[in-house]
Amino acid sequence: MGLFSKDIKTLDDLFVHTLRDIYYAEKQILKALPDMIEKATNPTLKQGFQAHLGETKNQVARLEQVFKMHGVEAKGVNCPAIDGIIEEANEVAGEVDDKQVLDAALIAAAQAVEHYEMTRYGTLIAWAKQLGRPDCASVLQQNLDEEKAADMKLTKMAESTVNKQAA
Amino acid sequence: MGLFSKDIKTLDDLFVHTLRDIYYAEKQILKALPDMIEKATNPTLKQGFQAHLGETKNQVARLEQVFKMHGVEAKGVNCPAIDGIIEEANEVAGEVDDKQVLDAALIAAAQAVEHYEMTRYGTLIAWAKQLGRPDCASVLQQNLDEEKAADMKLTKMAESTVNKQAA
Repeated sequence: MGLFSKDIKTLDDLFVHTLRDIYYAEKQILKALPDMIEKATNPTLKQGFQAHLGETKNQVARLEQVFKMHGVEAKGVNCPAIDGIIEEANEVAGEVDDKQVLDAALIAAAQAVEHYEMTRYGTLIAWAKQLGRPDCASVLQQNLDEEKAADMKLTKMAESTVNKQAA
Repeated sequence: MGLFSKDIKTLDDLFVHTLRDIYYAEKQILKALPDMIEKATNPTLKQGFQAHLGETKNQVARLEQVFKMHGVEAKGVNCPAIDGIIEEANEVAGEVDDKQVLDAALIAAAQAVEHYEMTRYGTLIAWAKQLGRPDCASVLQQNLDEEKAADMKLTKMAESTVNKQAA
């Protein structure tokens, strides 16, 4: 990288960059979820992914609201992290030769996605507060709360039925 | 993927595959940390990364112990997720043109790494218990507890000093 590509000069720049990172990530997740819904066998898991697809659409809309509140263009930036997480999910799913074991693998993959989102939203909320934007932090908090709830639901599903069926 | 590459047939196969995934990930983190230590400016952050380098070495050793307990070869598998997370950390760090803002970016990057490890260890522990290996679960739990503690330390550091200095 040359000197002239160092475009992030302030915490505000970093906040906007990371907002664009998670915006891209949420859109990639929107694209990945229909495939996960199709692959899932357990009906509760299938429904859970379906419900999360709806939530993800709302999360994208909330991010667009934050871009607007902050007066910057809503656009994505390259996010190798989510690309890698989704690539790995597809790779592992492609190697599993049993529907019940595949459900367990899909839950693990979805939880890796949730954790990525949780860490980014946690960071963005802290930075928004530091930048004097509790209004943006509050909208982002709604996304974080949904991701945490989705992750907890997946853990319950795994431990109550899916892992037992896979074993 | 052809039929013959579907090598994961049981939950035990999936457990071993994911153990190899996190083993590769921990080794990549071992390689990435010295660079993060060098880039960090805040002395507490620098020391925190240094301490985590030591912890990560112990975590690799614990994983080797779990491989041995479970009677399988300790080896890594391709893990596009951690590769993507580290690639993104390097990309963002390369774009930041201020040492204090870079510290905030480094914390965010490290927390993305921690969250990836937390989700994988959480999954592995649940599967180990399901497979009747509470002994393996207990060793993996030590790694999970360390990752959670490291993540909380980073949050505290960000909110108490690093974000303020960056703003």
